[in-house]
Amino acid sequence: MSFHPNHMLTLSTDFGTADGYVGAMKGRAYREDPSLVVVDITHEIPPWDIRRAAFALWTALPCFPPGTVHIVVVDPGVGTDRRALVALVGDHAVIAPDNGIISLLFEGSSPVSVFALDSSSLAGSTLSKTFHGRDLFVPVGARIAAGVMALPGSLAPLRDPLCFPCGHARRGADVHGTVLCADHFGNLITTIPWDTLPAPAAVTVRVAGFPVSIIAETYGDAPPGSMVALQGSSGLLEISCVQASAQAKLNATPGSPVVVSGA
Amino acid sequence: MSFHPNHMLTLSTDFGTADGYVGAMKGRAYREDPSLVVVDITHEIPPWDIRRAAFALWTALPCFPPGTVHIVVVDPGVGTDRRALVALVGDHAVIAPDNGIISLLFEGSSPVSVFALDSSSLAGSTLSKTFHGRDLFVPVGARIAAGVMALPGSLAPLRDPLCFPCGHARRGADVHGTVLCADHFGNLITTIPWDTLPAPAAVTVRVAGFPVSIIAETYGDAPPGSMVALQGSSGLLEISCVQASAQAKLNATPGSPVVVSGA
Amino acid sequence: MSFHPNHMLTLSTDFGTADGYVGAMKGRAYREDPSLVVVDITHEIPPWDIRRAAFALWTALPCFPPGTVHIVVVDPGVGTDRRALVALVGDHAVIAPDNGIISLLFEGSSPVSVFALDSSSLAGSTLSKTFHGRDLFVPVGARIAAGVMALPGSLAPLRDPLCFPCGHARRGADVHGTVLCADHFGNLITTIPWDTLPAPAAVTVRVAGFPVSIIAETYGDAPPGSMVALQGSSGLLEISCVQASAQAKLNATPGSPVVVSGA
Repeated sequence: MSFHPNHMLTLSTDFGTADGYVGAMKGRAYREDPSLVVVDITHEIPPWDIRRAAFALWTALPCFPPGTVHIVVVDPGVGTDRRALVALVGDHAVIAPDNGIISLLFEGSSPVSVFALDSSSLAGSTLSKTFHGRDLFVPVGARIAAGVMALPGSLAPLRDPLCFPCGHARRGADVHGTVLCADHFGNLITTIPWDTLPAPAAVTVRVAGFPVSIIAETYGDAPPGSMVALQGSSGLLEISCVQASAQAKLNATPGSPVVVSGA
Repeated sequence: MSFHPNHMLTLSTDFGTADGYVGAMKGRAYREDPSLVVVDITHEIPPWDIRRAAFALWTALPCFPPGTVHIVVVDPGVGTDRRALVALVGDHAVIAPDNGIISLLFEGSSPVSVFALDSSSLAGSTLSKTFHGRDLFVPVGARIAAGVMALPGSLAPLRDPLCFPCGHARRGADVHGTVLCADHFGNLITTIPWDTLPAPAAVTVRVAGFPVSIIAETYGDAPPGSMVALQGSSGLLEISCVQASAQAKLNATPGSPVVVSGA
Repeated sequence: MSFHPNHMLTLSTDFGTADGYVGAMKGRAYREDPSLVVVDITHEIPPWDIRRAAFALWTALPCFPPGTVHIVVVDPGVGTDRRALVALVGDHAVIAPDNGIISLLFEGSSPVSVFALDSSSLAGSTLSKTFHGRDLFVPVGARIAAGVMALPGSLAPLRDPLCFPCGHARRGADVHGTVLCADHFGNLITTIPWDTLPAPAAVTVRVAGFPVSIIAETYGDAPPGSMVALQGSSGLLEISCVQASAQAKLNATPGSPVVVSGA
């Protein structure tokens, strides 16, 4: 398995956009190679929210051209002995701290292989204790994107990457999962892939104990204020309140139980 | 009327930037053609706020080079039978749901012609029910920007695009309009073009019943906290509170009446 | 001292991203030269917050390739007789209103020279009274970045740029400074360069009267909720609360006193 870079680099962080930190990462990438195409995915992941970062990566990654390098920096353990990794996910490469950010990718259809990334990959640079985005992830990612550093090259496999539980279990006739996160619109994204549901049109869904009885094809299928379950755009079961926030209405949080029962 | 694309594509949405949705759109554009220049205008339109989207487009569009394609996705009706459109606005192309986003453009000096866009334009792709930004607007927009799909090509005219009322009326000596929206600074943008005012320096303005007596050339012309009326940077009458939020002070909302009276 | 542009232009503003103002600036830049690389640093500087803008610029600028042009528009005095400037900072150029945005740069190791920028630099364009970002700073910056306008060219030196106090004073055994700003994570950035501290491991720090006794190398060195002092990623003494907001906990604001005492 080898990687053929396309000179494109994406950035996802929880840095917000009110400081110069994101700019510092971009500048550092262009300093490696000014001809790179550097693309913002998000810098508004809520601080330290690994699951939301995993969802953003899951949503955006498959849309990019093969050969794209994706850097994700949500890193509460920066500067400690937490590990860092490079994952090959089909034709894509992901660079991130080893803290669960890649968990969802194992649920997808692309093969995933994971390698350990350490600062020895960075001959000649200084590594701060607080900003590995700028000092480790971006320089390495930019060199990979530019084709200067081969992947996996000499990186050692990382056999036990940290993952949060995101699969779903079937118990009797029911499918059990959890709320993964809420998105910008307050839609509740669940860990349950839509295409694992037995007969979507005929199920009932309970989220944090609240029954959702309308199974919709899209948000506009029901009047404003209705609570509906539908197939989210990236293939996961999603609970939405039409033109309002399902999160606010149901008071559900990441980890809240989701149960899908057959008719 | 034909369109000569310049390989540049702008994106305006209400998706926020905490999820991977915007990244998915960008990736999808680059997958059509990695050499496109994809430019963010805004992703922080308040959810489902058509008027704010119309104002953002009005502000940004005329600054771009001729041949730019502008995609605007504020789309509460996604997946229903709401129509989608392509508008030619002078040398620019706009791609959006047919829900009023292009209303203000008819107030400008460039000729506007509108065409119907449907998923038959998208041979060989699947169209989700919830994310037409990624699955319809961006693929079509990217093909237009790349010169692969001609405009208007075989698109049928759309003769009755939805528009919200944004013109102004003159009643006796007074000019009547409404508040279009508030911007990031709390400036109240009105539907009244500055150059339709009889003698700007000598008028008085009432917004939501509140009289604004200082007609200024710029924000710094009056002390902090003063309420002033001035020509906004995109040519509309604007009510500002110097170094504060006029919206918060006047409690005005979109649709609040604005009356300009001669001296 | 002359400037060799690399065709790259960065933008930092307090415009937010819910309007078309940032898009207007980008469009205006591409209209000067569509081959420019236009990079967002931040558009979420809190409105009119000169110190936060100065910190963003300080953080991001040194990471960019030599020859980059940086436009910073936080401009409460737009349209008044406040001056505008171009600063050469090592191999970089900064374009901004003359209101203190460049203050921190004088604390760095790169030589700084400052020139006056006025609208006479803009033959043939109209200058609005309220949007110099679009009408002055970007057109000039784009021409400099594209190599069309030489720097300093015929610009006159500006010998007394406005600066806010950002140095630190040593009184007896103590180092006195202030809080410069809080960043997105609530970290309190101070005006005190880390490498001016006598023996960092052995000091105590008081911020707004509150003692901070843990001197850390990185955030993860102490349990969540701990208040620590450490070397920030751009070289300034920083006060952090592990996985929480030091700003919220200490109720410190820009200008709050910071005192570092030797052991």
